Order: sequence, then C-alpha cells, then structure tokens
Amino acid sequence: MKRILILHGVNLGMLGRRDPAHYGTEALGLIDERLRRLGAELGAEVESFQTDSEGEMCAMIHRAVEDRVDGVVINAGAWSHYSLAIRDALEMLKVPVVEVHMSNIHAREEFRSTSVLAGVVKGQICGFGAESYMLGLRAVVGAV
Amino acid sequence: MKRILILHGVNLGMLGRRDPAHYGTEALGLIDERLRRLGAELGAEVESFQTDSEGEMCAMIHRAVEDRVDGVVINAGAWSHYSLAIRDALEMLKVPVVEVHMSNIHAREEFRSTSVLAGVVKGQICGFGAESYMLGLRAVVGAV
Amino acid sequence: MKRILILHGVNLGMLGRRDPAHYGTEALGLIDERLRRLGAELGAEVESFQTDSEGEMCAMIHRAVEDRVDGVVINAGAWSHYSLAIRDALEMLKVPVVEVHMSNIHAREEFRSTSVLAGVVKGQICGFGAESYMLGLRAVVGAV
Amino acid sequence: MKRILILHGVNLGMLGRRDPAHYGTEALGLIDERLRRLGAELGAEVESFQTDSEGEMCAMIHRAVEDRVDGVVINAGAWSHYSLAIRDALEMLKVPVVEVHMSNIHAREEFRSTSVLAGVVKGQICGFGAESYMLGLRAVVGAV
Amino acid sequence: MKRILILHGVNLGMLGRRDPAHYGTEALGLIDERLRRLGAELGAEVESFQTDSEGEMCAMIHRAVEDRVDGVVINAGAWSHYSLAIRDALEMLKVPVVEVHMSNIHAREEFRSTSVLAGVVKGQICGFGAESYMLGLRAVVGAV
Amino acid sequence: MKRILILHGVNLGMLGRRDPAHYGTEALGLIDERLRRLGAELGAEVESFQTDSEGEMCAMIHRAVEDRVDGVVINAGAWSHYSLAIRDALEMLKVPVVEVHMSNIHAREEFRSTSVLAGVVKGQICGFGAESYMLGLRAVVGAV
Amino acid sequence: MKRILILHGVNLGMLGRRDPAHYGTEALGLIDERLRRLGAELGAEVESFQTDSEGEMCAMIHRAVEDRVDGVVINAGAWSHYSLAIRDALEMLKVPVVEVHMSNIHAREEFRSTSVLAGVVKGQICGFGAESYMLGLRAVVGAV
Amino acid sequence: MKRILILHGVNLGMLGRRDPAHYGTEALGLIDERLRRLGAELGAEVESFQTDSEGEMCAMIHRAVEDRVDGVVINAGAWSHYSLAIRDALEMLKVPVVEVHMSNIHAREEFRSTSVLAGVVKGQICGFGAESYMLGLRAVVGAV
Amino acid sequence: MKRILILHGVNLGMLGRRDPAHYGTEALGLIDERLRRLGAELGAEVESFQTDSEGEMCAMIHRAVEDRVDGVVINAGAWSHYSLAIRDALEMLKVPVVEVHMSNIHAREEFRSTSVLAGVVKGQICGFGAESYMLGLRAVVGAV
Amino acid sequence: MKRILILHGVNLGMLGRRDPAHYGTEALGLIDERLRRLGAELGAEVESFQTDSEGEMCAMIHRAVEDRVDGVVINAGAWSHYSLAIRDALEMLKVPVVEVHMSNIHAREEFRSTSVLAGVVKGQICGFGAESYMLGLRAVVGAV
Amino acid sequence: MKRILILHGVNLGMLGRRDPAHYGTEALGLIDERLRRLGAELGAEVESFQTDSEGEMCAMIHRAVEDRVDGVVINAGAWSHYSLAIRDALEMLKVPVVEVHMSNIHAREEFRSTSVLAGVVKGQICGFGAESYMLGLRAVVGAV
Amino acid sequence: MKRILILHGVNLGMLGRRDPAHYGTEALGLIDERLRRLGAELGAEVESFQTDSEGEMCAMIHRAVEDRVDGVVINAGAWSHYSLAIRDALEMLKVPVVEVHMSNIHAREEFRSTSVLAGVVKGQICGFGAESYMLGLRAVVGAV
Repeated sequence: MKRILILHGVNLGMLGRRDPAHYGTEALGLIDERLRRLGAELGAEVESFQTDSEGEMCAMIHRAVEDRVDGVVINAGAWSHYSLAIRDALEMLKVPVVEVHMSNIHAREEFRSTSVLAGVVKGQICGFGAESYMLGLRAVVGAV
Repeated sequence: MKRILILHGVNLGMLGRRDPAHYGTEALGLIDERLRRLGAELGAEVESFQTDSEGEMCAMIHRAVEDRVDGVVINAGAWSHYSLAIRDALEMLKVPVVEVHMSNIHAREEFRSTSVLAGVVKGQICGFGAESYMLGLRAVVGAV
Repeated sequence: MKRILILHGVNLGMLGRRDPAHYGTEALGLIDERLRRLGAELGAEVESFQTDSEGEMCAMIHRAVEDRVDGVVINAGAWSHYSLAIRDALEMLKVPVVEVHMSNIHAREEFRSTSVLAGVVKGQICGFGAESYMLGLRAVVGAV
Repeated sequence: MKRILILHGVNLGMLGRRDPAHYGTEALGLIDERLRRLGAELGAEVESFQTDSEGEMCAMIHRAVEDRVDGVVINAGAWSHYSLAIRDALEMLKVPVVEVHMSNIHAREEFRSTSVLAGVVKGQICGFGAESYMLGLRAVVGAV
Repeated sequence: MKRILILHGVNLGMLGRRDPAHYGTEALGLIDERLRRLGAELGAEVESFQTDSEGEMCAMIHRAVEDRVDGVVINAGAWSHYSLAIRDALEMLKVPVVEVHMSNIHAREEFRSTSVLAGVVKGQICGFGAESYMLGLRAVVGAV
Repeated sequence: MKRILILHGVNLGMLGRRDPAHYGTEALGLIDERLRRLGAELGAEVESFQTDSEGEMCAMIHRAVEDRVDGVVINAGAWSHYSLAIRDALEMLKVPVVEVHMSNIHAREEFRSTSVLAGVVKGQICGFGAESYMLGLRAVVGAV
Repeated sequence: MKRILILHGVNLGMLGRRDPAHYGTEALGLIDERLRRLGAELGAEVESFQTDSEGEMCAMIHRAVEDRVDGVVINAGAWSHYSLAIRDALEMLKVPVVEVHMSNIHAREEFRSTSVLAGVVKGQICGFGAESYMLGLRAVVGAV
Repeated sequence: MKRILILHGVNLGMLGRRDPAHYGTEALGLIDERLRRLGAELGAEVESFQTDSEGEMCAMIHRAVEDRVDGVVINAGAWSHYSLAIRDALEMLKVPVVEVHMSNIHAREEFRSTSVLAGVVKGQICGFGAESYMLGLRAVVGAV
Repeated sequence: MKRILILHGVNLGMLGRRDPAHYGTEALGLIDERLRRLGAELGAEVESFQTDSEGEMCAMIHRAVEDRVDGVVINAGAWSHYSLAIRDALEMLKVPVVEVHMSNIHAREEFRSTSVLAGVVKGQICGFGAESYMLGLRAVVGAV
Repeated sequence: MKRILILHGVNLGMLGRRDPAHYGTEALGLIDERLRRLGAELGAEVESFQTDSEGEMCAMIHRAVEDRVDGVVINAGAWSHYSLAIRDALEMLKVPVVEVHMSNIHAREEFRSTSVLAGVVKGQICGFGAESYMLGLRAVVGAV
Repeated sequence: MKRILILHGVNLGMLGRRDPAHYGTEALGLIDERLRRLGAELGAEVESFQTDSEGEMCAMIHRAVEDRVDGVVINAGAWSHYSLAIRDALEMLKVPVVEVHMSNIHAREEFRSTSVLAGVVKGQICGFGAESYMLGLRAVVGAV
Repeated sequence: MKRILILHGVNLGMLGRRDPAHYGTEALGLIDERLRRLGAELGAEVESFQTDSEGEMCAMIHRAVEDRVDGVVINAGAWSHYSLAIRDALEMLKVPVVEVHMSNIHAREEFRSTSVLAGVVKGQICGFGAESYMLGLRAVVGAV
C-alpha cells in the first residue's frame, strides 16, 4: 500500500475561520478525514501534519526523506511565496511532491502569484478550495 | 447530465510527437477518449475541440457562451502566455473554467511561468502530463 | 464622398453579451447602423468589418492599402495590447487611422494600459462605450 | 441647459507659439471660441479657464465641486504626467470628466505615455490637435 | 511654551467633501480646532496653515526656518508622492517634523505607497483619519 | 474595559542592547510597563507578548482571533518585510491592528521601506522610538 | 537533393509596398524566385509559403515535422516578437531552422529587439533586406 | 549687447541657509551680483529671477519667449527632477538654455540623478557651488 | 584562548543526504569534528550549533551577544536569501562574523545570488564544499 | 577590387581551444585562410586582424576610417556586450559593417543577448560557427 | 603655478573626424593648444594626454597620484559609461577632478545618460563642444 | 609540486596607496611575498602577475591555458563587475579558479555586488583584506 504524506503549512489550522471567499468553511480536520477516505479508495495510506513553524515543517520533510514515503501533497500557505528553506527541504525528496492551494493564487495579489516551491515540485493545483487537496492526492497517487 | 467542453489550443494536435519529457507520448485522440470515459463515470458528457487558430478558439468559446455548457477545461498551450483575446473570450463565460497544462509551467522558461488566463479561470492544474486533463475534468465536474 | 473603414477586432461580435459595465448592452449591428447614419450626416460612406482572426484583420488592412480608403477607425480589442502584426499592417496605411476603445483602457488592468498600436495611429479615443466609435468617426472624417 | 467647464493647464496659454507639429497654429482664444459655438449647438454653456499654477487649477476644480457643473473637459498639459494633486482634486467631482490631449501622447516620449489622471476620468481623447477639445466636448455632453 | 506648526497641503481644504471612506466627514476647521485644544493640554501653541500652492507651502516652511518653531506636523497630501521641492524645504528645518496621512497610504494605489518626504522627517503616522493629526501632534511635542 | 494585545516580534527582546541610534536604550520590560500604565489611563487592559519564532507569533494571533481582544498593536521587527505568514494571520482578525516601528523604516535601507503587513492593518506609526508604541496604543484604543 | 522550406510570416505578402527604407522595393514573388535559383545552385529544392494566419503557419510547420524537410528558413515578421505558438511549433523540428529578418531588428524600436524564436533556432541573420533570405538559405544548406 | 536671463527655482532664495556642504554659504543676492559683474566683463546684460512657484517660473519663461532674450541659465532646484511643465516651457525657447546645479546631482540620492530638463537644454554644469552659475553664464554667452 | 561559534542553519543537519554535486557527501558531524581539530591548531575553541528554526538561530545569536564569543562563522543556508531577522540579530554582534556557503551561490539560481546577510558580515566565502567552513574558521580567527 | 577588413576581438585567437560546442574546433588561422579564398571568389581582398586589447581594436578601426576600406566584418567577442568604445569607433565608419558571432548569442546567457554594437552596424549574423564569418563576408561584399 | 592634467579617453584622438553634430570639427591638437593658452591666462600649467587604452589611462592617473598634480579634467568618452577601472583609479586622487563631455550626454541614447565616474568627481560639464573643456579647466582651477 | 598562478587586475599595483579602510596599507609586493611563503608551506609554487590592461590579463590567462598551471587565484578588481572578456578567458581554463576580493563587495556600492566572473569560478572569497588572498591560495591548493 502506498504511503502519502499531507503537509499543511502556516495558518491552515485556522481553516473554517479564515476568509470563506478564498478558503471555504470546512475545518482542517474534516479535510484530513476526507483525504483519508479518498486515500483508502485509491489504495493509499494518508497521514496529515500541520504546523505554523517553518522549522517543524522542514523537520517533517526531513523525516519523510528518511522514512521514504511514496509521495507528498503540500499546501505551504503563505510560506509558498518566500520560504526557500522549505524549497530546499523538498528538493531532497526523491518522491513526487504535489503543491496545492485552496485559492487561485495566480488571480489574487501580485505577491501570491509566484511560488518559490514551483521549481522542485512535480505539479501545482490551485483554486478549488478543499477539492484542491483531493485532486492533489489523486495526482500524487497517480504519479508514484 | 452535465455538458463539459474540453478546449485544446495551438500545437496540441501534435501531442505524441512533441518533446516527451514535457508532454508524454500519448496522442491527443487517446486523451480525448480517456476524458470521455472518465466523464461518463462522473456523469458528464464530454466534447473536445482542438485548433491552431486563435480566432477559431475564440469562436468556440463564443458558442459555449450561447450553448451554455456547464463547464470548460482549457489547455491553451503557448497562447496561455500572451493571448489576451482568449482571456477576454473566457471572461464572458458564466460557468467554471479550469486551466490545465501538461508540463509544470512554473518550473520551465521564465516566459512560461505567467498565464494571462489565470485571472479569469477558477483554478489551474499543471505538471501531470495527460493526467492534468483528467484532474481538470474532475475539478470542473466538482465545481458545476 | 469619403470612404471610411470601421474595423472591429476579436470578441467584438459578442457585444451586448459582454460585461455591460465596460461594454454596454448594445449589439455590434446597432453600432454599425449608427455609424452608417452618422457617416451619411458627415458626408462619408462607412463600411464595417469584424473578425476574430488576426490574419483576416491583417488581410482586411492590406486590402485597404490597395483600395485606398480615406480613413480607418479601429477597435482592435484585446489585440491592441500585443498584436504587433496588426501594428505593422496599419503602418502601411497612408491615411489617418483612429484607435478607439469602448472602456477606459488606462483605468483597468495594467496589461490593458498600453496599446502597441499607439505608435502608428493618429489618435486614440477611449472610455465612452459605443460613443467612442461615433467620436472616432468624427475624428477620422475631420482628419482626412 | 448643461454647464460644461473647460480646463486648460500649464503652458497652454502659449498655444499657437508652441511646436506646431504637435500643437497646431491656432491660439487658445480661438479654440475657446469654437468650443463655445459647438457648445451652443449641443445645448451646453461652455466656460473656459487656463492657468499655469497647479494650485489655481486645483482651486478651480474645487469650485466646480461646489457649483456642480455638469461636466468637465481637461487638458492638463505636462501636469497630466505627474500632478497627483490634480488627480485627487478631479476625484472629488461627481460629474463626468474627459481628458484631452492635442498630441498623441502614447506615440511620443516615454514619460508622456502615462497620465496619472487616467484613473479618475471617464475617458481620454488624444492626437487630434484642437479637434481633441471638440471631440471631448461632444463626449462630455453625451455623457451627462 | 512650545510652538508647533501644522501644515496642510493640497486639496485638504476640501476635507469633509472628499471620499469619506478614506478621509472622514470632519471639515478641516474642526480638526484645527481639536489640534489647538490638544496642544493646549500638552503645553503647546498650535498654528495651522493650508494651501493648494506648492510655492506657498515652501514659503511657509522657509518662514518656519527663520522663526524657529519647535516642531512641525505636515500632511502634504498628494504632494507627498512627488514634490521634491517640499522635501528640500523641510530638509532645512532643524526641528522635528512629523509626516501624517489620514488614510493608510501603504494599503492603497501603488503610487501612494512611497512618500518622497520620508527621508527628511522624524517619523510617519498614517491610517487613522483625523486622529492621525492628533497622534502627530503628540509625537512632535514628545520629540522636541 | 477594552483588552489590547501588544505583539513584539523577532529580536525585540534584545531592546536596550541593539543599535541605540535606531532603537534607544530602554529595555522591552520598561516599555511594556509604560504601555500598561498608559493603557490604564486610557481605560484599556494591556497584555504584551514577545517571541523570536514566527510560528509562535502566528499562534498568538490565532488565539487573539478566538479570544476576541479589542485591538492589537504589533511591531513585527524584521518580519514586517517578508513574513506573509504573519500577514495572513493578522488578516483573520476582525479588530483594528496598528503597526508600529521604533525607527523610521522609510528612511533606512531600501529593503526596510516596504512592510508586507501594510495591506492588512488599519494604520502605521514609525520613527518615534519607544514612543511609537505609546502612540500606537492611543491609536488602537481610539479606533476600537 | 536537400529540401528546404522557406516560411514567410504575417504582412510579408505586402513586400514592395511596405516602408522601403526597412524592407526594400522587391516583391515577395521575386525573392522566392531568387531563392529557388540560389537553391538550385546549392543543390537544394526550395519551397516557399506565406501566410498572415498564425494557425496556418503552425500547421505548415507541423507538416514539415511529418514530411521531414532538411531545413527551414523563417522570417516570422512581427510574430517573431510574441508568437510563442510558432516558437513551440518550431521546437518540434529536428532539422536546422534559420531565422531571418530584412531589417536590423536590434537597431529599431525596443519591442523588436527580442525574438521569442531565438531560443529554438540555429542562428539568426538580420539587416540585409532581401539578401537576408539568400544568406539564410546558404546558412541552412551549409548546416544540414 | 547680449541679454541673458538667470532663473533660480524653488528654495534657492534660501541659499546661505541650506546645507552648506552641498550649497555653500553665499546668499543668492551675492551670486546675482557676481553674475552681473561677470556678465559686464563678457559683454552681456544679466537679469535674475527667483520664484518658489512653478507657475511663475513658467510665466517667466513665456515672457522670455516673447522678449527674445539671447540666452538662459536655469537652476530649477528640486523641480529639475519632476517638473515636466518647466521642461515644456523651456522647449518653446529658441535660444540656448544652460542647466546648472550647485551640487553634483549625479553623486547624491538616486532621485536627483535624472533631470527631466536635460532633453531640452544645450548642456549641463553641476557640482561647483556658486561657480556653477559663473560657468553657466560663460557657457551661454559663448553659445549665443 | 579564542572562542568561535559555528552556526549551521536550516536543512544543514541533512548534509550527506542532500544533492552531492552542491553539498558533498560528508555529514555535518564530521565537519564539526574537523572544525574542532582545526580550531585547536589555530588556538581556538570551536562550538557548533545547528537548527531548522529561525527563532532558535536568533536566540543563539542573542546568547553570543551576551557571552561575548570572539567570532562567528555562519552558514545560514536558504535563510541567507530572505531572513532579515537573522540579519538584524547578527548586526548586534560586535565581533567578526564570516558568512560561508558550501556551493558557489553566485553561480546557481538567481534567487540564491543575493545574501541579505552580506551587509552585516565581515566577509563571505563560498563554493568550496566543506572546505568553505575551514576557510571561514581561519578567516575569523585571523580577524579577531 | 573591394577591400574588406575582418576584425576578431578578445579571446578569438584561442579558437580551436575554446568550448567546441559553441565555437567549433577550427583555429583562427584556418578561418582567415578560408575568408581570403572566399573573398577572392567574390572579388574582394580580405585582410584580418585579431587583438585582445580594446585600445588596439579601436586604433585598427580608426585606421580603417582613414584608409577607407570598403567594408568591415567584426566579431567583437565578449566586447560586443559592453564595449561602448568599440561602438563609438565603428560609428565613425561610413562603410557597411557586419557583426558576426559564432554562437547564437540570443539563445545563451541573458548577458550575451544584447550587443551594444547593434545600433551602428548594418546587420548581424550569429549561430553558424565559422560559417558566420563566411556569411558575413558575403553580406558585406553584397552591401558595398 | 598650478599644474593641471587634461585626460582624453578612447576615440578622442579622432576629433574633427567624428559626427560633427555632436563633436564639432576642431581637432584635438587645437583644443589642447587652446587649453594651454587658457591655462596660462589662469595661472596654470596644462598638460594633456590621450589614449585609447584603458590600462594606459589608469596608469596615467596612477602617476598623477604620485606626482601630485593640482587638478584633473577628464573626458573619458565611452568609458564614462562602464569603466569602473577608471572610476577606481580616479578615486585615489586627492585633488579635484572635473568630468567633461562635448555632447549633452543626458539628451542622447539612454546608455549614455549615466556616468560611472560621477560618484568620484567634483562636478560635470557637458554639452558645449570644445568649450566644455575650457569651462572644465576654469572649474578645476577655481576649485584647487 | 603544484603550480599556482596569482592574477592581480587593474589598479591593484597601487595597493597601499588606495583607501585603507577597504584595502589596507600593505603594498602588493608584500602580499605576493606572503603568498609565495604560504605556497611553499602548502607545497605549491606561486607565481604572481599584475596588469592594468584587460588585454594583457586575457593573454596571461591564455598562457595559463597552454602551460597548464594547476590552479588560479584572481582578484580582477573593478573588472570583476563588467569584463566579460576576462570571464570568457577564464572559462577556457580546466583548472580551479578562485575569485578573491579584499573588500566585502556585497556590502558596498550596488554596482560592486555582482561579479560577472562568478559563473566561471569555483568559489569566491571577499572581505578579509590581504587575508582574502591567503585564504584563496589555501582554497585553490585544496581544490586541485
């Protein structure tokens, strides 16, 4: 069975509280639950992790390098636009990484339109709210 | 039953012949066939259209405005980076539009990293080869 | 009697359907009819042409070079912002060309604020909806 | 009867003396006279004002805010390219403002191609010499 | 007793008439009255001056250089973004100058986010409507 | 009684040790003490928090979202110039947020002149050393 | 015998009518005739194609991919500066492509100094009027 | 006898009070006196004018257009860097204009390194304090 | 005996696992061991510290400010390119700081070519793999 | 008989030693020999000159101004991208100058894509290795 | 008696042959002769030096550092716009350096409008043909 | 025994005379002497070369290509920031090249922060005065 790691970055623990026009009203726990169920359907074991600390996010990715998960779905939130540290951490992974965003980052403020992670991921999915995660999970399972 | 329109832009009729590192080896007809089958699974009738002419692409979108399809998946190819004409045409649609790219446009040449369509679509999916289309179809069916 | 050519570019056949805040609710046929009537008042024969194909637009301008119309009013739509092909075609004309836009292009998205045609036209009129065409016709008739 | 205010900015009192290739040979008084006559035809009372002082120009616009004229035509000359003060003054007006330029500002020096007023006016007309004013008057009368 | 000079720049005499979302509904006279009262509380004599003329503003600052006021609060309005003349005038002052803005200039149009005065003032306060002035007065009294 | 949260970002625990030309000689504890006393005067309960961890800062803001404080004063230090994570966290707050800086950030190195927080705060106060906090507290108490 | 394809882009059918300072007075038919004769000398069969339609140009290149010509000389005219569609089409060719321009594009307007095709061609020749084509033909024959 | 006009722009009436490192300690009256004496030596009648009002400066230049002075020396101060109004006024003069600056504008703040007047003057002299004027007077007398 | 602090930033604990072309195959512990031995040779006591948390890195630097080490060698990894927080922390140190990078940051991706730390360190050494640390230690010992 | 001067700039004496992917394996002497032979065919006397000194290159061009050669082919190597001195020297020539590059400069590093010589030469040929010189010789002989 | 060194840079030995619109018709020898005569009048011994070699120019400046001339006038020609080597050489001089240009560099091509020498000279004089040198000599004699 | 070539560029023969804050007080001969002694310690024969002529520097590098030295240390001085000629020369070397600077180029004027050589050297050392050379020698000896 494939092992997929879902990584939620900074502020994403607040989902359901944040601007619903961009982020919907569903709390993170529900999304994780849906991801686990979809994973089961697709023959994948899904583990989720959320942190507001860049250092913990990097450490989690380091562990993934050691544990050899089969794929990663990451929504790095605001870090996507400046955290070269997370970029470098992801670059060490030899498995497919899929970048997801709930909002369409290319249609919002200028500073959100560039992701510093883009150069080290397999692909990017953005704009579909919680569905971005589901599509990301399908993408990564299909790619491994 | 939902009606979904798939729009393939310039040079995409050559799929299978183009640089396989970025675009895979599958011909467009096979992708369209897979899209139809997946559509059937998802309860959607899928119609595909390819053109190398910007004017025909715009005209096809105009017809979609009249016919009121339920959603659109578009891979505008190179036009994504400069055809404001297609942007303006898409802006007239009241139904969800999903932008897909087979390659990860944010990890290639600088001029490919910006899509002028981004501001008028619901979301973007890139980097998964032919699977980008399948994910795009799921996204648009989920959004309508 | 002066012969004036009105050129409508990409997506303008959809007038009346497009975002009414920027483009009004009047269909293109009605505008052309009003232009013909105003032309008659001003002693000018007015002929209109619309196309979604850049190549056809260039060909129409080439014909105007041969036929020697007395003036041209062009609303190139989205092409105004990138079609150097149309710019080069217009540059061959020896008669006055007036560029019109229904919306105030200098007060919208950044990418609309520059017209690549500006260097080869006599003047520009923008922001007055269908009236931009009427003013453009007056301007070109006054200039020939 | 509609009341229209014509505002001429810095250096425009020198019309007829300035580079005739860009500005023609007609003095400002003659243009104002033609504007009054055209206004009469269009059912509008036209009042003109010229100043080389940015402060006086702002004060004149402030008075227009109080007096509630029905529309304004402004040729702010060189100020168009940097006077945010005039922009802010115009922004207070609730009536249509039309920006005119005698020369085609988009086809001259780079620094002339942007007008800081563009964001607060209804539309812009440039490139037709003294006729730019006449078209501007028609535009504003049509818009009120 | 400390002598503080309040300088209001272009268009600020129109306060109460301008876009209330950014500038509130209070007229300038009332603000000046409140400043005088607050000054009295803080042991400072407050004198206010408003002008729409850059030249008069500079002259007023020149007089302050001679008279040796103890501090200056300036809201230069739109001039803040381009009047290097006022910058140079302020640079001659040896007493603390506080720059205030009623709106949050860093969260509006791009061209408002830079103040050319910033390099020659002690500090900047923006975003609090008429209260920006009150805070500015406190700041300058505290600094002298 | 109003509840105001004071947030001190990275390196600010070192106040009193840092370059006194920009940051004064007063330690952070003393500033917090003065803020509490001023709060009492203004009828507000003031609570302060300092951290060098971006994640903890975000978590503190998340708690403020839940606890519903009445206002926030934040000096995010160097984070002001790049931490989009803190920006996103602040954006969730429905109460007024005031950004303060001890130095005049617009008159120092280029990279300090832009705050990524500016778009989500009510206003900004900078340049007055420890007094920037006092003015910020007054501003936020006045705004709630 | 080598087979060489000559591709003339938009507006080039008007050669002989366009600004003679940049483009000479020779009509396209004569240039094609000279190319055929020079080809014969060099042992190459030369076929020419002109179109004002970007889509037709792409289609012609697609056919060259299938037919396996031995080399291509292309003057894409104004498209050289923005048509990423043609760039992508050319990239599929496995044979040498030579880009030619009649005028010295690096010594004219800024927007003409960059060719988006440059990255996918073997080399570029510009500035020699109709001779640019002859040199291009020699270059491509020498390279195959 | 040649008639030379010396124009001093904004803040220059304060010479002798301004930062002596850049501007010396000599008052403007003394400089004007020295210019008159040097003019007499060189066979030129020298008239000086200072204003802090851009409008008055333009008006003075307009008068010079009518009176036909033989040459102009202008130190436009801070206006040099943004007043396109003064640029346009100077452009109407048919006699040589020499731009002078007391400080070396190319070795100070970035915003001072560009003069918008440079395109319409014969030459520029900067960096020599009051001597810049004397050299400018020699230059203009030599040029007429 | 001199006390030198070695600071390893984010992801550097993974050395030996990361892309060997840029970072070699030696684990961090071995490098630290070599640094201690070289320090002993040079008469310096060497202490090393690694963290993936920006906050901990700042705190470590704060402690160095208090403890008064004699010099610091820092490889801030990806933080070098955006962590102004670390820059501000380093700026408080009164002892020499040497910035090292294992790869030649000026010859890789554009975003790596600028270090925000450069303005507050004595010097920079990059491109020599683990030897960059050894050279850095020599440099800092020579500088104290 | 026409006299053509071939100028080889800095590092070109090393041809045959330099990166063969860009510069081929042929030494400069062989290229010069081939140019002489081709010149003879075309009725031109060809003289070649190589130098690594910018000053000598300028002096050689100065001599060509005096001697009145009939045309020049120049490969200025790296100087093409910054030596305004050579540009100014070439500008003095009244005969056709053809710029050649062995590699396709528009498809390599960004800094190579602009030639400061482009504005003063008749045309440019690049990308064909040693053949660039042969084509350049044909171009210049055809142009004189 | 003061000793003044005149330095003429690259291509200036060709004066009299170069574009007379920018550089006049006077040969360099005549200018040097006039400078010697003017020097005599002003009580200065004038020595001139011209070279097309950047290295020789630097060496000449090095000698001036040793010999302790009293002042330098330099026209570095095209080098002014890129030779940081000459800038660094001039920076070593403790005596006044005056930069002169015969043409108005700020009114020509963009690349000529910036001098890299500007930061290390006392002042700049440009636009007066050979008279620029005379004014420069007066300026430097006045400054020593 | 290893053979190492030390290359000193323009103006470095003046060491000891130049601004001591950036370059120390030690003459170049002393540094070369120290390099020889350190080389002896490290088992390397060290040869030094200084020139103010870019052409000679290139020629010296060409000789190193032929002679096959084992490594190069280069301080190209001001050339580092623009001499693409030296970059191209260095690129031909197959042995390690280390770039050194006495001052911290990344903490001075903007134009010094980029080295055009960086892309073709193994690594860079800057900021340690004469010690930069010693560290560079160690680096290159370690790398060969």
